[in-house]
Amino acid sequence: MAETETLTLDEVRSLTQAALKASGANQANADAVADVVTRAERDGCASHGVFRVPGYCTALKAGAAKGDAAPKVERRAPGVVFVDGDKGLAPLPMALGRPMLAQVAREQGIAAMAIRNSAHFAALWPDVEPLAQQGLLAMSFVNSRAFVAPAGGRKPLYGTNPMSFACPRAGGHAPMVWDQASSAAARGEIMIAARDGHSVPEGFGLGPDGEPTTDPNKVLEGVQLAFGGYKGAAIALMVEILAAGLSGGELSYEADEQYTGHGGPTHNGHLVIAMDPDAFGADTFLERVESLFERILDDGDARLPGDRRLANRARIPKEGAVLPAKLVAEVRGLAA
Amino acid sequence: MAETETLTLDEVRSLTQAALKASGANQANADAVADVVTRAERDGCASHGVFRVPGYCTALKAGAAKGDAAPKVERRAPGVVFVDGDKGLAPLPMALGRPMLAQVAREQGIAAMAIRNSAHFAALWPDVEPLAQQGLLAMSFVNSRAFVAPAGGRKPLYGTNPMSFACPRAGGHAPMVWDQASSAAARGEIMIAARDGHSVPEGFGLGPDGEPTTDPNKVLEGVQLAFGGYKGAAIALMVEILAAGLSGGELSYEADEQYTGHGGPTHNGHLVIAMDPDAFGADTFLERVESLFERILDDGDARLPGDRRLANRARIPKEGAVLPAKLVAEVRGLAA
Repeated sequence: MAETETLTLDEVRSLTQAALKASGANQANADAVADVVTRAERDGCASHGVFRVPGYCTALKAGAAKGDAAPKVERRAPGVVFVDGDKGLAPLPMALGRPMLAQVAREQGIAAMAIRNSAHFAALWPDVEPLAQQGLLAMSFVNSRAFVAPAGGRKPLYGTNPMSFACPRAGGHAPMVWDQASSAAARGEIMIAARDGHSVPEGFGLGPDGEPTTDPNKVLEGVQLAFGGYKGAAIALMVEILAAGLSGGELSYEADEQYTGHGGPTHNGHLVIAMDPDAFGADTFLERVESLFERILDDGDARLPGDRRLANRARIPKEGAVLPAKLVAEVRGLAA
Repeated sequence: MAETETLTLDEVRSLTQAALKASGANQANADAVADVVTRAERDGCASHGVFRVPGYCTALKAGAAKGDAAPKVERRAPGVVFVDGDKGLAPLPMALGRPMLAQVAREQGIAAMAIRNSAHFAALWPDVEPLAQQGLLAMSFVNSRAFVAPAGGRKPLYGTNPMSFACPRAGGHAPMVWDQASSAAARGEIMIAARDGHSVPEGFGLGPDGEPTTDPNKVLEGVQLAFGGYKGAAIALMVEILAAGLSGGELSYEADEQYTGHGGPTHNGHLVIAMDPDAFGADTFLERVESLFERILDDGDARLPGDRRLANRARIPKEGAVLPAKLVAEVRGLAA
């Protein structure tokens, strides 16, 4: 068997939909998840593309995520959209709540959307990029399971707690979007090093004895560390409070207590904030952002966050997504 | 002369007011700045206390900050408070705008305050702590002058770009507040190492040749680096866009072009976001935050951000602020 197989993005989408439906998702949920998976593959984000489909399917089959979840969107305050995900996967509540979030942000200047009872297992940039495509600034915050130590600590407490930021651009450019974990490394990166017998850099984590280690197995048994020392840990703490605190979703350590070992996502909280630069009277916002970006690109090897994704986006829709053949076979098995 | 002199907090306040007024500040501006300086000394934050007063005075005398600035506060959208600082120092516009920000956040669930034409030279935690004392979550963002390289770059572009986060607490606890630069080190820390002939750790910056260095003089001539590599640089970029972009204040490189070498602050932008947990229906917010904090404190050497400040706050109002005698003499000279 060849090691890789190339799928068109339409094939990625329909294969993902089929695997999810065969695992118990209804059409609306399968479509929303497949959309996020397909956009990840379009941008070359292998770690959040088809690679995640088996995890989604396991969570559906284990009953950890409801396949027929029907999220409810309500405006809980003039600036607050609240979504109850009905214990399903995150893409559908995110897709259903986002139009109201955008409308409220334009009306009010700033708006927030909190989501609870939904399982986030994807990248964050697909949640916020559509807002920036409509001219809005956006930030988002998601917590997860207890993997990361607080500043100075040695026990897992915070999730890898990613946050993202999206900024609209002028002149037909795709928005500038970044999306990053508060941990020094993604958990998957450490798992892959363990599988392949490689060591990990110092700073990724501590062993179960609380001591620094470069052995990925010890980090997985012990605790991950935040990026950038205590400053990254402060970001992780903020994400925990914004994502789980405001939504009433599970704190990362609470999610751990509920977790049944299914390998899929848990029901944490999510927060998305959207702002309309026009409401601030910042009528030169887009051109000033472009001047800033020009200065970044003038600086030799400096680059804009997300530029590799956008380069992939120009190429992959034509060339197709190159996937591990074994993964494609596994997902075809799930879809059968 | 003794090396230190101990002042009561009342003496800190009146000395600061006198120095500012003698340098051209009117009563309202002198009071607002003195309040921020006094709160910094109360919390043992020497770097943002009386130490900053000569810089404020120089900026006033150089005309870089108007001593009689009369900030204008307006509600520009249902969720947006906008403050024009009238080219003065930041504490007065911050103090005048904050009550409206808090009121709007309670009404709308989330609100933003953008400030332009004001010179920020203080810590950020005093801006947001009063909001958390009223039960609101708050974040703030301020840019400065071009000191820090973008990800992968070698030229100064971003400010040290601090952000802060404040979370209300139950049970009479002071709010949990953090406040941190996006740069690996504060600029003052590098200046002090240069003055004292010490080296700085790797990662603080690059020399004018674009190469890593531990020589603080070379970093000051070259460029500072963000904390935590490209992730910290992404935070610095976000702060630049949120602080200067939405307010229309000067981007850090624009502030540099206007800077006349006075040693005081420049007119950048500031953004404060406030959220009311009650508006999200998060009725167990405070108790869940307390459970999270308990877990942090259960973890051996782990600590909550800001705990040293709060320990100082319990002690310094009784014992007084211990200041370098030379600094006190200098500020007395400015007040004379």
